Amino acid sequence: MYKNIRTDLAIENREIYNQAKNAEDEIPGVKVETEQKNNIKITRVIIETKEGEEALNKPVGRYITLDIPNIYEMTAEDEYLISENISKELKLLFDKKPESVLVVGLGNENITADSLGPKVIDNIDVTRHILEYAPEEIEPNSIAVSAIAPGVMGMTGIESSEIIKGIVDKIKPDALIAIDALAARRVERINKTVQISNSGIHPGSGVGNRRKGLTQQTVGIPVIAIGIPTVVETAVLVNDSLELFIDKLQKENKSNQTLNELRQMENYEKIRDSLISTEYNLIVTPKEIDDLIENMKDMVARGINLAF
Amino acid sequence: MYKNIRTDLAIENREIYNQAKNAEDEIPGVKVETEQKNNIKITRVIIETKEGEEALNKPVGRYITLDIPNIYEMTAEDEYLISENISKELKLLFDKKPESVLVVGLGNENITADSLGPKVIDNIDVTRHILEYAPEEIEPNSIAVSAIAPGVMGMTGIESSEIIKGIVDKIKPDALIAIDALAARRVERINKTVQISNSGIHPGSGVGNRRKGLTQQTVGIPVIAIGIPTVVETAVLVNDSLELFIDKLQKENKSNQTLNELRQMENYEKIRDSLISTEYNLIVTPKEIDDLIENMKDMVARGINLAF
Amino acid sequence: MYKNIRTDLAIENREIYNQAKNAEDEIPGVKVETEQKNNIKITRVIIETKEGEEALNKPVGRYITLDIPNIYEMTAEDEYLISENISKELKLLFDKKPESVLVVGLGNENITADSLGPKVIDNIDVTRHILEYAPEEIEPNSIAVSAIAPGVMGMTGIESSEIIKGIVDKIKPDALIAIDALAARRVERINKTVQISNSGIHPGSGVGNRRKGLTQQTVGIPVIAIGIPTVVETAVLVNDSLELFIDKLQKENKSNQTLNELRQMENYEKIRDSLISTEYNLIVTPKEIDDLIENMKDMVARGINLAF
Amino acid sequence: MYKNIRTDLAIENREIYNQAKNAEDEIPGVKVETEQKNNIKITRVIIETKEGEEALNKPVGRYITLDIPNIYEMTAEDEYLISENISKELKLLFDKKPESVLVVGLGNENITADSLGPKVIDNIDVTRHILEYAPEEIEPNSIAVSAIAPGVMGMTGIESSEIIKGIVDKIKPDALIAIDALAARRVERINKTVQISNSGIHPGSGVGNRRKGLTQQTVGIPVIAIGIPTVVETAVLVNDSLELFIDKLQKENKSNQTLNELRQMENYEKIRDSLISTEYNLIVTPKEIDDLIENMKDMVARGINLAF
Repeated sequence: MYKNIRTDLAIENREIYNQAKNAEDEIPGVKVETEQKNNIKITRVIIETKEGEEALNKPVGRYITLDIPNIYEMTAEDEYLISENISKELKLLFDKKPESVLVVGLGNENITADSLGPKVIDNIDVTRHILEYAPEEIEPNSIAVSAIAPGVMGMTGIESSEIIKGIVDKIKPDALIAIDALAARRVERINKTVQISNSGIHPGSGVGNRRKGLTQQTVGIPVIAIGIPTVVETAVLVNDSLELFIDKLQKENKSNQTLNELRQMENYEKIRDSLISTEYNLIVTPKEIDDLIENMKDMVARGINLAF
Repeated sequence: MYKNIRTDLAIENREIYNQAKNAEDEIPGVKVETEQKNNIKITRVIIETKEGEEALNKPVGRYITLDIPNIYEMTAEDEYLISENISKELKLLFDKKPESVLVVGLGNENITADSLGPKVIDNIDVTRHILEYAPEEIEPNSIAVSAIAPGVMGMTGIESSEIIKGIVDKIKPDALIAIDALAARRVERINKTVQISNSGIHPGSGVGNRRKGLTQQTVGIPVIAIGIPTVVETAVLVNDSLELFIDKLQKENKSNQTLNELRQMENYEKIRDSLISTEYNLIVTPKEIDDLIENMKDMVARGINLAF
Repeated sequence: MYKNIRTDLAIENREIYNQAKNAEDEIPGVKVETEQKNNIKITRVIIETKEGEEALNKPVGRYITLDIPNIYEMTAEDEYLISENISKELKLLFDKKPESVLVVGLGNENITADSLGPKVIDNIDVTRHILEYAPEEIEPNSIAVSAIAPGVMGMTGIESSEIIKGIVDKIKPDALIAIDALAARRVERINKTVQISNSGIHPGSGVGNRRKGLTQQTVGIPVIAIGIPTVVETAVLVNDSLELFIDKLQKENKSNQTLNELRQMENYEKIRDSLISTEYNLIVTPKEIDDLIENMKDMVARGINLAF
Repeated sequence: MYKNIRTDLAIENREIYNQAKNAEDEIPGVKVETEQKNNIKITRVIIETKEGEEALNKPVGRYITLDIPNIYEMTAEDEYLISENISKELKLLFDKKPESVLVVGLGNENITADSLGPKVIDNIDVTRHILEYAPEEIEPNSIAVSAIAPGVMGMTGIESSEIIKGIVDKIKPDALIAIDALAARRVERINKTVQISNSGIHPGSGVGNRRKGLTQQTVGIPVIAIGIPTVVETAVLVNDSLELFIDKLQKENKSNQTLNELRQMENYEKIRDSLISTEYNLIVTPKEIDDLIENMKDMVARGINLAF
């Protein structure tokens, strides 16, 4: 019944799948590896076949998730370790080392919860122009790194994917790295997860609901996506509360047939949507989101800088 | 059963009272006036006695609420009209025209949802220093307006009320006007309500949960508070969804005794709190909150500037 | 002797020419019109031939200058009138009304004196996406307006002209409007002049010293440039002070042959450059530049919005 | 003839004195120590008597100057070393360790060149409220650190010294540390010098020209001032260029009596002031000032945090 609930995290699709099947079984066409490094938990979900695609509702590809500590409990070493692991996983996603990459920061700088991408861009060490105009000032074998925050369609009038394609056609990088703020399925994941994948950015994902995607098919070069969940939808919060609530009643033997049936129904989504309405697009986000984004952007930018 | 739900809006306490009593009756010790001006609805809740205080869970005083349109449907004239009415209601709250006012912007400039106060301060036309150093450059009979954003305790190490009292003791204004971002009880109120009251700021109110209040008792001069709800608590959203959900089941004759009883229970709050937990302080806020605060601060600042 | 002094303003090249020739004579190949509208002085310098190009050190084209009042003495009406005149002059520079324009904000948002372009972009009313996805929500015959701030090479690793060309190739607008902060020749012009021209942006102009230009030749569509001087170079200030100083001595008969000759010399520039050195790029700018840019960007953005 | 030239740096007053006397001699009533630590040069100017006060045009007190490298050539270790030395010199200025300090960030956050103070405040680790409300969460013997940015009179209507005094009367700290952006006498000093002194803040100093000072006399507790020059006045730049220019002519035997006399005159200042005028307050500042302030504020804030 969770099929329609939006999440940008493959790890959550896997949870949803397992929960629906009431099983921790293997998923056909999907491989999962986990690794613990200090207090970072790394989960690699590899979707290998069409069957896996359907099971997890995500395209074939590698999805690496870093579960990280609460930012207020992190030491400077923790932060550095996270950057190092972002760097390491990032490099593993390339079949061969690219000679040039374009880093793209998606999202709206003026909406805090959507500003991760543009803020990371401000901290990327770009080298492409130095290689072109002053190659003697840079180490030999350096990769040409360029970076752009294309803005959002509401502010530019142009799909960000069109802007990116125009620039890619012009400067012809070997690969794209796209940073985006994500919507999570579970509130516990907000600002506590980094997802890196080689399947690109897909329509409707991200806090800002990008209309068109950025994938190898659409831009012609590999697209690595790095995302951090910064919000959950209010509908998700409401949904979860109903779920937990019925659970609780069932455990206490206070449920009834209606409720029991409801938990199995397909039209759950409709019920959910009818519940709360407002004239603004409400999101659920930490009060300290401005602060959290500042920290997260540093870790992600350093991770990318370390990789190249 | 709503007794413990937090709201900073007297108009919502009144709704809660009426809902609990299942009545639109008069509340003892409370007078209510309403007025419609174009598309602004003005409600004046006047708590006159101890009895009224208890009924509405707010101290004696006048609480004026302006219900305003969705900011994306407002014209420039609507915005101006709101400022004018803020100005007008503000002046009505003074027994006699003050000769000097200190405008105080409470809240944390770095947390968007809590930044209304400091942002209003940036737009206040201050005159106190002109009256002191260049009185010839200003109209005679001008009021001495000064303005300060004291920051929040987490950043200054000092209660904002202590900072304010220190400054009041030094410059001795006739009155204080305190601006604060509020928490609402209903999501529909976010950024659609301006509350002006003469009962000051009370502990635990505001997005930032001020620890100590600012009232005539504590600072020795009248304190007018202007607030706009910018968030609701997630617990409130969850609570409401359960409420609506039981309503829906009752209407469809799908409820049961457990649910019916639950709706009357006193320990609702405990149930609610058990539902969702996370390591961050989650709030529910419009995605466009950055934008909305920008507009709101302009209207409030202009309202204050027009008043003096 | 002023030949090598950098200015982005045609009106100043004209002054330099006239001063060098000690004449207010006509300049061959150049037409000049002036008009006074309330307290805005409009000067239209039209460079018509190669001869004019050489005389004024600027390519053939129309250069319109609006001399405006000190921003602290402007009324809201003055500001609106300036926007209206920007709009009017802008439209006159098009041979025929374009059906689509791309507005480009050049410069570095993080360097205040160079941030005019990106800040104007934030305030442009874009329509291109509405025409594409929801044409029913917009007036028929609307122009498709899009807008982008490409950043600076030091931050993106890419020439801003390359980014623009990539986007132009993709979305094929009929014309480009480029906003840039300029360097003036005279301190009196800072924030008191708006220049609009149809000759595009040229290498080495602007506060940020764009390396490559944006002109009809390079992008294939007409390029209208709107610029406001926000700085003068320190060398210019030093140069002027020497100039004024020799003048003063000459008037008081306290000069000598050395000084008199110096004023005529060709190698003035070398002398000038030897005078003051430092490790940073010093500029001369108003202390209130942050404030001034905020006002200017509003006037320019509104001017563009009114035009389309 | 330099007597009237404004500088906030004691080290520059000393240079001016020595230059005027054409001597590197000792100055009566003044002791000077220098020390080189890696690439930081520390100069301690100690004004001991009235005679010293008059010679250097600064009140009795200790003035420590750290000359630091160009920020673009600094390593992370250099930055840390500067913070450590700020911390060390700061502690040496206290006769005995204070139990509580209030850190004050003077200046206008919205004017980049004047924003050092408020930006440092954002990065101070405040502890006073933890000691008061949760002393178990902090090490025993911790100093109570609080911090405030009082804003500028043009925005608050109140002298920042009055705000500070009000707060000092209320919370009674043992000492004040005041951060301010300074005006330097020589362009080479901009962003390359940190001055720490125990003589407080004096009227007319700072980029923002504070009207009233903050000294032990006015607030009743010791006041340590930390300042970094971020601008020079344009008049200073012009003045220097004339000076250098006459020097150059003298060396080449191209000067004349007028010029030679001019260099000795008392009314130099009048000449200087007549040279260039404008309607805005022009300053000379690095183009990259926004960036430089970000770095500087980190070093100063860390220096203060290390000290307590």
